[in-house]
Amino acid sequence: MARSKYTVGIDFGSESSRAILVDVATGEEVATAIHSYLDGVIDEVLPDSDVPMAPDWALQNPADYLAALEVTIPAVLRLARVSADDIIGIGTSFTSCTLLPVRADGTPLCMLAEWRADPHAWVKLWKHHAAQQEADLVTRAARERAEPWLPLYGGKVSSEWFFPKVLQILREAPQVYAATDRLIEAADWIVWQLTGQERRSACTAGYKALWSSRHGFPSSGYFQALDPRLAGVIDSRMSHRLFPLGARAGGLTADWAQRTGLRPGTAVCVGNVDANASVPAATVVSPGRMVMLMGPSICHMVLGTVERIVEGMCGVVEDGIVPGYYGFEAGQPGLGDIFAWFMEHAVPPLYHEEAAARDFDLHQLLAEKAARLRPGESGLLALDWWNGNRSVLVDAGLTGVLVGASLATRAEEIYRALVEATAFGTRVIIEAFARSGVPIDEIVACGALPQSNPLLMQIYADVTGRELKVAASSNAAALGAAMHAAVAAGKGAGGYDTIVEAAAHMARLRDEVYRPIAEHRALYNRLYAEYVRLYDYFGRGANEVMKALKQIRAQARGEA
Amino acid sequence: MARSKYTVGIDFGSESSRAILVDVATGEEVATAIHSYLDGVIDEVLPDSDVPMAPDWALQNPADYLAALEVTIPAVLRLARVSADDIIGIGTSFTSCTLLPVRADGTPLCMLAEWRADPHAWVKLWKHHAAQQEADLVTRAARERAEPWLPLYGGKVSSEWFFPKVLQILREAPQVYAATDRLIEAADWIVWQLTGQERRSACTAGYKALWSSRHGFPSSGYFQALDPRLAGVIDSRMSHRLFPLGARAGGLTADWAQRTGLRPGTAVCVGNVDANASVPAATVVSPGRMVMLMGPSICHMVLGTVERIVEGMCGVVEDGIVPGYYGFEAGQPGLGDIFAWFMEHAVPPLYHEEAAARDFDLHQLLAEKAARLRPGESGLLALDWWNGNRSVLVDAGLTGVLVGASLATRAEEIYRALVEATAFGTRVIIEAFARSGVPIDEIVACGALPQSNPLLMQIYADVTGRELKVAASSNAAALGAAMHAAVAAGKGAGGYDTIVEAAAHMARLRDEVYRPIAEHRALYNRLYAEYVRLYDYFGRGANEVMKALKQIRAQARGEA
Repeated sequence: MARSKYTVGIDFGSESSRAILVDVATGEEVATAIHSYLDGVIDEVLPDSDVPMAPDWALQNPADYLAALEVTIPAVLRLARVSADDIIGIGTSFTSCTLLPVRADGTPLCMLAEWRADPHAWVKLWKHHAAQQEADLVTRAARERAEPWLPLYGGKVSSEWFFPKVLQILREAPQVYAATDRLIEAADWIVWQLTGQERRSACTAGYKALWSSRHGFPSSGYFQALDPRLAGVIDSRMSHRLFPLGARAGGLTADWAQRTGLRPGTAVCVGNVDANASVPAATVVSPGRMVMLMGPSICHMVLGTVERIVEGMCGVVEDGIVPGYYGFEAGQPGLGDIFAWFMEHAVPPLYHEEAAARDFDLHQLLAEKAARLRPGESGLLALDWWNGNRSVLVDAGLTGVLVGASLATRAEEIYRALVEATAFGTRVIIEAFARSGVPIDEIVACGALPQSNPLLMQIYADVTGRELKVAASSNAAALGAAMHAAVAAGKGAGGYDTIVEAAAHMARLRDEVYRPIAEHRALYNRLYAEYVRLYDYFGRGANEVMKALKQIRAQARGEA
Repeated sequence: MARSKYTVGIDFGSESSRAILVDVATGEEVATAIHSYLDGVIDEVLPDSDVPMAPDWALQNPADYLAALEVTIPAVLRLARVSADDIIGIGTSFTSCTLLPVRADGTPLCMLAEWRADPHAWVKLWKHHAAQQEADLVTRAARERAEPWLPLYGGKVSSEWFFPKVLQILREAPQVYAATDRLIEAADWIVWQLTGQERRSACTAGYKALWSSRHGFPSSGYFQALDPRLAGVIDSRMSHRLFPLGARAGGLTADWAQRTGLRPGTAVCVGNVDANASVPAATVVSPGRMVMLMGPSICHMVLGTVERIVEGMCGVVEDGIVPGYYGFEAGQPGLGDIFAWFMEHAVPPLYHEEAAARDFDLHQLLAEKAARLRPGESGLLALDWWNGNRSVLVDAGLTGVLVGASLATRAEEIYRALVEATAFGTRVIIEAFARSGVPIDEIVACGALPQSNPLLMQIYADVTGRELKVAASSNAAALGAAMHAAVAAGKGAGGYDTIVEAAAHMARLRDEVYRPIAEHRALYNRLYAEYVRLYDYFGRGANEVMKALKQIRAQARGEA
C-alpha cells in the first residue's frame, strides 16, 4: 500500500489563521494549528505609532500573515508526524476583499519605513468601511455609463470591494497611490510570497474587482470617467492574467521551504476566498444545492450552468467557485452578529444566571427555551436588518424592526423571532434565485452555528421548505483550500485532476438531515407573507423611515 | 383663630386603599394610612375555596374595602391627633369600572354563603378582561341601531366597562343575575355603606355605564336588542337618580361612626373615580389645561364648555370631572407597565449591576443614561402599543413596534425610544382634541412617575410643545376625594361651596416647570411625522400584520 499523501490548507481569517493538514485520500483532518495575529484588526492606532485611525477603518499588518505561515505549517507537520515528502500541495483561503499596495517586488508599502506612518500604506481589511463615498462614486459612474457588468453585482458596488478601496487611497493619499507598483488582494499576495510569482486568482478579481471572463476588467474609459488618474490602473498596477481556482500558481520557494519545513517546489494553489473555498468542502460541486456559510453574517453560494442576473446578488463569476460553472453569491450581513448583539444587550439577568447555573452558554439556553415555542407562537415578526440588507435590496442603510411586542413578550420569543427573520431573509434570496432561473433544491450549511444550533437549522428547513444538511468539517474554508491544493498537485503527484474528484474523496456531510415539518411550513408560509409585506414596505421605498431616522440622528449630532 | 377643619379622602386602588387626612384651609396632608387588601386582586382561585379562575378574570372581595375603612380612618385620626369633631367630611375615589351584584339592602352576593362559590357573585375589578365578547356585542348592537351615545365613547365600548360585565354575568351565570337586586359600581357601593343610602354618582354612570345628562341610560329598546333579558335592567337593577360630584350623599351612619371613630352625620361625598378626582387635585378646574395621570397607563382628562366628538376618546360626560364643564377623557393603556416590562425582560446584567453598585434603582440608571442622548440620536422609533392602543385608535389588538435597531443599539436608547413613543402617543391625543375644538394649552402631570422622572417630563414637554407642570401631591386621587368632601360639607361647616374654591385653597403644583426646548422640539417634530406615518400604517388598516400575527399565534396554539 502506498504511503498516504497530504495537503495543507491555510485559512486567513480576520483575527487569526488556521492551518490544517489533510489526508488527500480521505479528507481526514489530521492536524490543526491556529495563530492569532499580533496586530489583529487595526482600528484604533497604527502599530508602533501614535497615528490614530478614523472611524470605520479596519487595517491589517501583512507581517501577521507571514508569521502565521511560519508558525502553523511547522506546527501541523509536527503534530501529524508526517514527512514533508508526503505533503503534495499547499492551498490558501483568505478574507476578501482585503487589499494592499505593494512594490514591484511584492514588498508591502507598510513594511517600508518611509510609508509606515501612513494608514493608506497598510492592508485594508474586508470590513474597512471607510470607502462608502468612493463606493457610491464607483456605482454612479457605472450607472451613468450603463456598464454591462453592473447588473452582475446586484446593481451596486459595495464599499468593501476593490476599486472603492483603491479610489480611497488615490483620493486621500495620492502619494501612496503614486508609490504603489501593484494593487493586490491579500489572497494573491500570499501566493506571490510562497511562489515568488504574481499569479492572481480569477475568483477574487471576479467577485471583488469587477472582472469577468467575458468583459475583463472595466474599461479604461470607465476608469477615466470615475477619476482621470485611474484611467491606467489596470495596465499599470493590476494584471490581465488571471488563473482559475485549483490551478498551480507555482512551486514553494527555497526560502519558504526553509521557513515552513516543507519541500521546495511543493505545489502552491492559486489564491481562494474563504466562503468560496467552503463550497466544495461542503460537498457541493454541481448546481441545485446552495451552500450557506453561517457565521457573523451569511454568505449564500450556488452554482449554475448559465449566467443569470439575479436581483441583489453580490456577484456571478464564471469559474468563481467551481471551474466549469457560474458561481453565484448572495449574502445577508447579519446572523451570528445579530444573536451576539441580542445576547449582550437585551437579555435580562435571570437568563444569564440560569445559563451559568446549568453550565450552558447563554445561546444554548435561549435556543433551548425558544425550541419549546411553536412557529408563530411568539406573536412577533422581525426584519433582520440590524446590520443592513445586502441581498436582495443592497441597502446598508436599512435597520432592524420588531413588530408584535406586548407586555407578555419574553427574551426567548425575541430570540426566536430574530432567527426566523434571518431565515425569511434567506428565503427571499432563494426565491430571487429561483425566479431568475437558478433553482435551489437543497441547502448545505457550514460554519460553527449550524453545528451547534439544531433549532436554527430546523427553522431554516421549515421556512425555506428545503432539506438542510450540514458540512462535516468545522474548518470548511481551510479544508476547501486543502482540496484545491490536491488539485493543484494533480493526480500524478497523488492528488486529483479536478475539484469534483477531490470533493468525492475529501468532503463529507454530517449524518443529520433537517427536513421541513409540514405543519411548521404552513405556519411559516403565513408568517413569510407578512415578512415580505414589511420587507417591501420598508425596503422598497414606500416608507423611508429608516433613512429619515439616520438623517435625524445626523442632525441631532450636529452632522447635518 | 378658629380651629382647623379637616376632611378625610380615601382612594380605593387595585391592591390597597390609602386614606389621607387633609387640612381644609391649606390642603396640607396631615396624615396618611395605607391598607393592603387581604385578598388583593383575585385571579387564580376564589377565596376560601378551590374554584379556579379563568384567564383574564380579575375579581375583588368587597370585605377588603370595608376593612380598609375600619383600619385607615382610625389610623389617620390617631396619627394626626385631630379630634373627630373637626372632621367635616369624607370623600372617596375608586377604581372604575369595578362593579358588584348586591341584594336590595346592599349586601354583596359574594358575602352570602349560597353564592360565595360562584365567581360571578364577586366584584369584577376594572381590569377584569374576560368580557371582550360581550363588549363586542354591546358595541355592535349600538352600531346597528346608530345609538347617539356611541360617538361619545370613541365609537367603541371597552370590555372594562359596566354593561359588558353585566352581560357576562347574565350570559354565563343567569342565576346570579336573577338573584341580583342592584348592579352597582364599587364607588357607589362604598358610599351606600357609609351613608345607608344608595346615591349613585353621575361620573361613574357617565364614563362607564353609557349614561348622559341629555340621553339618560341607553333605552330599553337598545337593551332589548342587545339581549331581551336585559330590557328592564335600568328600571329593575340600576337607578335613574344620579348625583353630581361634590354632592353630599348623606351623613355617616351611627354604625360606621363607631367603626371609624368619626362623628355620626359627618358629610359623605358622592362617589368619585380615581383619575377624575385627581384633576382638581392637580389644580385644574377650568378648560385648556390637560391633566395626565401617569401610572401603569395614562389617563388624559380635560374640561370643555361644549360637548364635542373627539376621535377615539374614552368618553365625554357633562359634570363628569368638574361640575359645570364637560369632562373629556382619553387614554393610553401602557406607560409604567411598558417601562416595567422593558426593565424586567430586556435590560442586560451590566445595567442591573451598575444600578446596584450605585444604589440606584434600574429605572433611575436608565433615565440617567438616556438623558445623555439627544432627541433622535438613538436612531430608533417605536410604536407604544405594548398593551394595545386606546386613544385614538381604540384597538386593543395592536402591538408594539421598534424600528431602527442596529448592532450599535443600546438599552438606554431603547428605553428612551419607548418614552418618546408614549409621548408621541399623547401628542396624537392632544391633536385629536385640538382638531375637535377642545384646545389644550398646558399639561399638568400627576402620579409617581412625573415626580421621579424629570427626563420623562422634559420629553413630554418637547414632544407636545406644551409647558408641563407636576401636581404637588403624590396622592392626587385621595386629595381630590378630600377636596370634594370639603365641598360636600359646604362652607357653613368650614368647607367650600364649589370645587373651584376648594382647588384654590387645597391643590398645589410643584415649583418646577418643564418648558419645550426649541432645538429638541424641531427634532421631535421630524420624528413625530415619522411616528404618525407608522401609526396610521399599522393602526388604520393599511397593514393588518398585528392582527395576522395574533391569528397565526392562535393557529399555532391550536385555538384557530
